[in-house]
Amino acid sequence: MFKINDNFLKLPGSYLFSTIARKVSEYKSANPDKEVISLGIGDVTKPLVPAVIEAMHKAVDEMGTAQGFHGYSPDLGYEFLRKAIAKHDYEKRGVKLDLDEIFISDGAKSDCGNIVDIFATDNRIAVTDPVYPVYVDSNAMAGKTGEYDKDKEAWTDVIYMPCTAENGFVPAFPEKTPDIIYICCPNNPTGTTLTKAQLQAWVDYAIEKDAVILYDAAYEAYIHEDDVPHTIYECEGAKTCAIEMRSFSKNAGFTGTRLGFTVIPKELTDPTTGAQLNSLWARRHGTKFNGAPYIIQRAGEAVYSPEGQAQTREQIESYMKNAKTIRDGLSGAGYTVYGGVNAPYIWMQTPDGMSSWDFFDKLLTEANVVGTPGSGFGPSGEGYFRLTAFGTAENTAKAVERICKL
Amino acid sequence: MFKINDNFLKLPGSYLFSTIARKVSEYKSANPDKEVISLGIGDVTKPLVPAVIEAMHKAVDEMGTAQGFHGYSPDLGYEFLRKAIAKHDYEKRGVKLDLDEIFISDGAKSDCGNIVDIFATDNRIAVTDPVYPVYVDSNAMAGKTGEYDKDKEAWTDVIYMPCTAENGFVPAFPEKTPDIIYICCPNNPTGTTLTKAQLQAWVDYAIEKDAVILYDAAYEAYIHEDDVPHTIYECEGAKTCAIEMRSFSKNAGFTGTRLGFTVIPKELTDPTTGAQLNSLWARRHGTKFNGAPYIIQRAGEAVYSPEGQAQTREQIESYMKNAKTIRDGLSGAGYTVYGGVNAPYIWMQTPDGMSSWDFFDKLLTEANVVGTPGSGFGPSGEGYFRLTAFGTAENTAKAVERICKL
Repeated sequence: MFKINDNFLKLPGSYLFSTIARKVSEYKSANPDKEVISLGIGDVTKPLVPAVIEAMHKAVDEMGTAQGFHGYSPDLGYEFLRKAIAKHDYEKRGVKLDLDEIFISDGAKSDCGNIVDIFATDNRIAVTDPVYPVYVDSNAMAGKTGEYDKDKEAWTDVIYMPCTAENGFVPAFPEKTPDIIYICCPNNPTGTTLTKAQLQAWVDYAIEKDAVILYDAAYEAYIHEDDVPHTIYECEGAKTCAIEMRSFSKNAGFTGTRLGFTVIPKELTDPTTGAQLNSLWARRHGTKFNGAPYIIQRAGEAVYSPEGQAQTREQIESYMKNAKTIRDGLSGAGYTVYGGVNAPYIWMQTPDGMSSWDFFDKLLTEANVVGTPGSGFGPSGEGYFRLTAFGTAENTAKAVERICKL
Repeated sequence: MFKINDNFLKLPGSYLFSTIARKVSEYKSANPDKEVISLGIGDVTKPLVPAVIEAMHKAVDEMGTAQGFHGYSPDLGYEFLRKAIAKHDYEKRGVKLDLDEIFISDGAKSDCGNIVDIFATDNRIAVTDPVYPVYVDSNAMAGKTGEYDKDKEAWTDVIYMPCTAENGFVPAFPEKTPDIIYICCPNNPTGTTLTKAQLQAWVDYAIEKDAVILYDAAYEAYIHEDDVPHTIYECEGAKTCAIEMRSFSKNAGFTGTRLGFTVIPKELTDPTTGAQLNSLWARRHGTKFNGAPYIIQRAGEAVYSPEGQAQTREQIESYMKNAKTIRDGLSGAGYTVYGGVNAPYIWMQTPDGMSSWDFFDKLLTEANVVGTPGSGFGPSGEGYFRLTAFGTAENTAKAVERICKL
């Protein structure tokens, strides 16, 4: 008799964004005359830039000819893309990577979820709280998080490191020692960042404890302040303790185009056996994945061309104008807001101690604006609410106006 | 201190096709004057058909406009594609599926590898032997296969069901009762098939034993004989015991374009808790994957258009001509060959009881032809060798000529 993985049955409710999508869909069906503006899910709205479109047309044409056709991608992804990444994202920051330390994938969400495969079940994970749900849910599915405590809305075996206004959204070293530490910087959902010194302290801590840091840098392109690291490998020793995950979703609008990559330096080895984590991931990648599409890898390469860089930079700046619109508008109306300076996310406190799901419902039904309830990101997200800067300028201004009128 | 998943360390050598790629690359470097023909990895060579190219250009243009831009895909994939699949692949065969029983993915390899996530660790898997390595390796990574016995080249907890010339490549019900049964039909690597009655017997067996069948139908488009089922759901009761995985790689040349899907009927439930496997996979899909690219989903839709169907059919027929060239050529030279009638694979017996890796080396160095050693697919593949029909007609003829001259 076959048995299912009953860890799935422990998962509370459905995936956060699926729940939101359902609620919004139900509201829209019941109120077809209402114009609902979404500043909820972190999905971009601007079209792909001309340099990317052009590269994809060219690649599509190639795929239609015998000479230009491309079948299975090399296991790690095409060198033309890995070279562009090594040069632009790392060499320019003083970080030297071998090309086989970069693994091209179909996006950071897949990599964040799948990376758990290469770790044992009995690692204790630590996450900042609030946190991007995929880190915890993917570990829960693999039976690495203990039991779900409904009252606390928390897993018994997960170390939650609160990041709230009280500590300036900088996690303190936890009481229990973690084995695997998730850090997302610039942070989703709070939109806040760590300074280089703060991140270095975490790298030093990880090295001391033989822990590994899973570093999600999906929002790197939004960094505007000088003292925020663009890659964790700017920190001394990070190559011996950190895996970095990156995405094209937010810097180039690839949410529906799907491309990302993960860096695993060869210096990162298992403290027990000395095995390289790079080799383990290479084996996982080669066995359970078959590459990102050739056309999409060419699209990624175009992001690094001079035109691609200029055009995507312009998009990012226009999203950051939205962030400013939200920040300034809500602050002016008396709300307390964080983030939005080095990230496309604004993290606001709910008014009058309202619960974050109650505020979600209020905003949806009274202002017809969709945001994301802070508690969906973890226990310490309660009392907060996330708005994203990915809407159009017009819709963003309209949404802020509606919220301020509440 | 963090701990790696040491199941990875039990895996023998590297992934089969990576090993072959390395050997070929080394040979080419050492012999730059030799023209090596690959009939090895199951990678197509013909360009994408015009209907697909046209659809992708259109989708690329859409992605470059504010109105036509598409961000995150719906969790299960776009309805336009799921509707086309439900109609063409199932309704036409008398099988009715709900659209939320179809999950679009980036390919059957990912699905085959990732599906292990929803099953408990203590299921006993049964595979036909020889077998596509991903089934076993993905279970081994998850600690579901016991220890690797180097002498037997087999895992202690896997039930291997030999498929050889002796039993006509039809697996017998095993002595030990399996919980999860992998069946690939038309078969990779042997190129052989089961009749509908033979597959029905397996469905009946699975139902009787409360086992689940993971049915890989990636080569369905190559079926030419009447009595071979195109989907397992043609068999009575299959919806209560089978998951079907499909690919666009072989019917439409998407090996480098990446698209596939998995069907999990809602009737398929966990015998212990009654939980729907469909829900579990939906949760996994929504948490650890973010959809296939919009452009590629439109490409998949175009495969089902009248033009797409006619054009891809022509490609398949031309590959099948190669299969006939190989079959007839090798038979004529006295080799014993199987497959190649309902599948793009020819499974030949190595001459004079030569080991399959020795034959690989001989073919590479003496005939400059790359094939796949049968033992790479499992213990019962020893003494066999796989050739694929995916080369060009010219190269295929040339390769056969070279082999016959050996």
